[in-house]
Amino acid sequence: MTTEKKPPLGNIKVAMLGGLNEIGRNLAVIEYEESIVVVDCGLGFPDEEMPGVDLVIADTTYLEKNCDRIEGVFLTHGHEDHIGGVPYLLRKIDVPVYGTNLTIGILENKLEEHDIPFEPDLRVVRAGDIIEAGEFTVEFIRVNHSIADACALAIRCDAGTIVHTGDFKLDLSPIEGEIMDIPRLGQIGKEGVKLLMCESTNAERPGYTPSEKRVGQSLENIFTVNANKRIVVATFSSNVHRVQQIINVSAKHGRKVAITGRSMINIVSAALRLEYMKIPEGLLIDLSDIGKYAPNQITVITTGTQGEPLSALSRMAFQTHDKVRLGPNDLVVISASAIPGNEKMIGKIINELLRNGASVFRDDSVSVHVSGHACGEEIKLMIALTRPEYFMPIHGEYRQMSANRGLALDMGIPDRNIFLSEVGKVLEITPSGAAFSGTVPSGKILVDGYGIGDIGSVVLRDRKHLAQDGIIAIVTTIDFDGGFIVSGPDVVSRGFVYVKESEELVEGIRDIACETITACIESGVFDHVEIKAQVKGAVMKFVSSSTGRKPMILPIIMEV
Amino acid sequence: MTTEKKPPLGNIKVAMLGGLNEIGRNLAVIEYEESIVVVDCGLGFPDEEMPGVDLVIADTTYLEKNCDRIEGVFLTHGHEDHIGGVPYLLRKIDVPVYGTNLTIGILENKLEEHDIPFEPDLRVVRAGDIIEAGEFTVEFIRVNHSIADACALAIRCDAGTIVHTGDFKLDLSPIEGEIMDIPRLGQIGKEGVKLLMCESTNAERPGYTPSEKRVGQSLENIFTVNANKRIVVATFSSNVHRVQQIINVSAKHGRKVAITGRSMINIVSAALRLEYMKIPEGLLIDLSDIGKYAPNQITVITTGTQGEPLSALSRMAFQTHDKVRLGPNDLVVISASAIPGNEKMIGKIINELLRNGASVFRDDSVSVHVSGHACGEEIKLMIALTRPEYFMPIHGEYRQMSANRGLALDMGIPDRNIFLSEVGKVLEITPSGAAFSGTVPSGKILVDGYGIGDIGSVVLRDRKHLAQDGIIAIVTTIDFDGGFIVSGPDVVSRGFVYVKESEELVEGIRDIACETITACIESGVFDHVEIKAQVKGAVMKFVSSSTGRKPMILPIIMEV
Repeated sequence: MTTEKKPPLGNIKVAMLGGLNEIGRNLAVIEYEESIVVVDCGLGFPDEEMPGVDLVIADTTYLEKNCDRIEGVFLTHGHEDHIGGVPYLLRKIDVPVYGTNLTIGILENKLEEHDIPFEPDLRVVRAGDIIEAGEFTVEFIRVNHSIADACALAIRCDAGTIVHTGDFKLDLSPIEGEIMDIPRLGQIGKEGVKLLMCESTNAERPGYTPSEKRVGQSLENIFTVNANKRIVVATFSSNVHRVQQIINVSAKHGRKVAITGRSMINIVSAALRLEYMKIPEGLLIDLSDIGKYAPNQITVITTGTQGEPLSALSRMAFQTHDKVRLGPNDLVVISASAIPGNEKMIGKIINELLRNGASVFRDDSVSVHVSGHACGEEIKLMIALTRPEYFMPIHGEYRQMSANRGLALDMGIPDRNIFLSEVGKVLEITPSGAAFSGTVPSGKILVDGYGIGDIGSVVLRDRKHLAQDGIIAIVTTIDFDGGFIVSGPDVVSRGFVYVKESEELVEGIRDIACETITACIESGVFDHVEIKAQVKGAVMKFVSSSTGRKPMILPIIMEV
Repeated sequence: MTTEKKPPLGNIKVAMLGGLNEIGRNLAVIEYEESIVVVDCGLGFPDEEMPGVDLVIADTTYLEKNCDRIEGVFLTHGHEDHIGGVPYLLRKIDVPVYGTNLTIGILENKLEEHDIPFEPDLRVVRAGDIIEAGEFTVEFIRVNHSIADACALAIRCDAGTIVHTGDFKLDLSPIEGEIMDIPRLGQIGKEGVKLLMCESTNAERPGYTPSEKRVGQSLENIFTVNANKRIVVATFSSNVHRVQQIINVSAKHGRKVAITGRSMINIVSAALRLEYMKIPEGLLIDLSDIGKYAPNQITVITTGTQGEPLSALSRMAFQTHDKVRLGPNDLVVISASAIPGNEKMIGKIINELLRNGASVFRDDSVSVHVSGHACGEEIKLMIALTRPEYFMPIHGEYRQMSANRGLALDMGIPDRNIFLSEVGKVLEITPSGAAFSGTVPSGKILVDGYGIGDIGSVVLRDRKHLAQDGIIAIVTTIDFDGGFIVSGPDVVSRGFVYVKESEELVEGIRDIACETITACIESGVFDHVEIKAQVKGAVMKFVSSSTGRKPMILPIIMEV
């Protein structure tokens, strides 16, 4: 009898390229031997430190360099912060992308707006499917979330199993589809889980997130009590179950439904096509036709819950929408919570709606929104089911990941087995332990217009400076051979002061620039850099002491 | 027997120059016959629509034009949004300013930073005092608020009484001082109140605001449980009662107290001088000396609750404070709520504190803050006590004023007697009724550096544009007589792209500008405005189509 010796097990490596400490840009890289699987590839939105920037994506240099080893990108669900970066990744590398029906459907819509140099390899899976991916298998496991068809992933290799929760909650009475697959997660836990990568968004909140069905009950009450009003409901377009509930209650109360907002129209049509939504024949009408019905026979479903100034809701509130104006006969239901940072913009719309006589219901007064993320007890349930050896909080700000660590400690996972990572940091899991070991290239790539990554810290710093106090350009044409100023200095400013009312100030700047340049020329200083530095210094001193402001000073020397 | 005929009663006029629809800049004008009284004169802070602006004050043109009729400025309490505009008003007109001891004390500190052309006429009053003010008398009535020595005002003239609540809450167990003067308000109500001007900040919240004492109880728990840590408490500097409670609990637990943050040091010293605060001998130590004590013998009281990047708390969190660095041995208590719009900045500090190992307690997990404003039931109590004929919600956004209207309706005030005003609108109260009648000059005045009112919409629009995509200056020196370009076009950009990595783009801009100008000259177009317009158009088209961005284009023509 011969005994075959198995080769020793290798190490699993896990790195997050996005999805830590900041909302958006979720991207996890998991490696074993020669295989890499990527989980999610999202985008984020700029904060106030990135003026003018449109989007933020993760630096994928590491994936580009190792593209031959990538077995696939596995998408947990169809939200922007999980799939929005896929088009940018596919522009660079051709890898298969796996996701459930709705996820891939939404991705297809997005890809149409991008110039991908090949036919993307998109592969639709169902919850329960197990995909072979090199050294790995990847199993899709049903979870509940604020978008349909969301999954967690069980990623297996010889060295063990990693469970990645994606975004999840437990909804015991979901609108369509199924309850989070508790038995399967429990079974996987029983078989042994090395690492649980668990989302942290609501980890600071105790208890359980309520079922989506609660929103339906609130809507039913609202529609019953406000039977005499036109009802406008604003919600996230991707929450097809929410939209379905609004449609159901409208149908029940004999209302026609009109839909507005580009992303709302896009997602609803995708959801209908893929049969994630059912709308009774004849219920949906065009927004142009709402005048044909009495106001109390109409529901309008719209985007704009975050106060976005160009959204349909904002335009309806500020009376600039070409088809709907909101007034005393309207009830506006904002079926969403405020994403931190958006409170003021949302407040502006609410104020304007009330000023025009409309009524406004928000989540803080009536339960018209529930979160899509697991609260403390749900995260503890996930830990109890999967019983992981190691735990990594992901998806959230540091405070949320820190709270998630607290939950893991409560569940008996020792502190040394909990890993709060940073973007780019590599967690290496060996047969005998786990520890951080080095980094891979990582960072934020800023997208502005068509430019991807051409906006750096210098440009952002300048934009912030320009926004604070504007700019003063001082242009002078000099004949260095003759040693005299040919033309100028001319002073042009933007964002500084209104020049017509500040002629004296501008005159003062011109005089100082002229004196400084003349002094340079007379003392034999012909170096442009040196002259500009002197002009900048002198003008800044004058402007700062006379106005208390520090605009950007831009001296320009033209030579003849 | 002769009967003396009384002259017929005149009309009372009420206009708000600030304090409606936006936080800050509270300023009410009340007129009867030849007399004017002013209630509060605050300042506000700029929102994201006003980049670079330091402060916002109310347009006081109307007061300047009628300065001879002003009997006085009556301050309800010492918060910035109620007194911060006084120095700017006094720069222009010399009027007496009335306020309680602490209010005037804080104002005196502020006035030292301003250049007032005369000795300001500041008059200290006590709650209960009645001031003669031309046709009016003004009575100061004790209320509770998040600053000591706050008052409501009863403003009387022959035509009736107006009650202005200032900011208030009912605190049945205040830290020092007295409970809101319920009996006096009731008596005034019994005598008859024409108009109640009532603050609206918390009108959307049901119930009662808890007593300040609740915070003391929470602090006691926190200090007991965390006896082994250094404790840092961040709070609003003006809340002297809160600071007093932190000092009391520190003294009880054998801790020395160090104070940091400019405004905290200022207000504490004023409060001590005026005896609004009591600190046991030897308790206060200099921040430089905290190293002489064990961490668990130290409490640090600091500013920075709103995440202000330059605040002491922020510097301690980001390890740039020269005396304190916060780490695993520290507990940070944020004893304040977030002012809308500041959530993200506060979140950044919390994340950084946790990342450095410090613990953080906030209001959402433990009760370490209570509001200073009346909730629904307290506003209803104010209405019940004063029994006004007319009601005007003030101080708040429209949504809050709208909720306040709802409370007045609940209390039986008919809708036609409730007036939601706008800044500058005049409410005229005649013996037989009340109605809006015209406006007075009003608006926002922006303060930027030393400039007051020199920043207008054009400058703000330019600043926002500059922040979005930066600026491209295109400078060309032309000899129009000779009909040729002498020098340039030179292209200089800021906040657009990093030029070294975009040479091709800059080259393209230069070429297009050159072609355009050459074509102009060749076709006899010498008008600077026309040439600049053509350059701007051509370059914008090129830049927009090649980058998807719309920077500001600034063509400059120099003539030799």
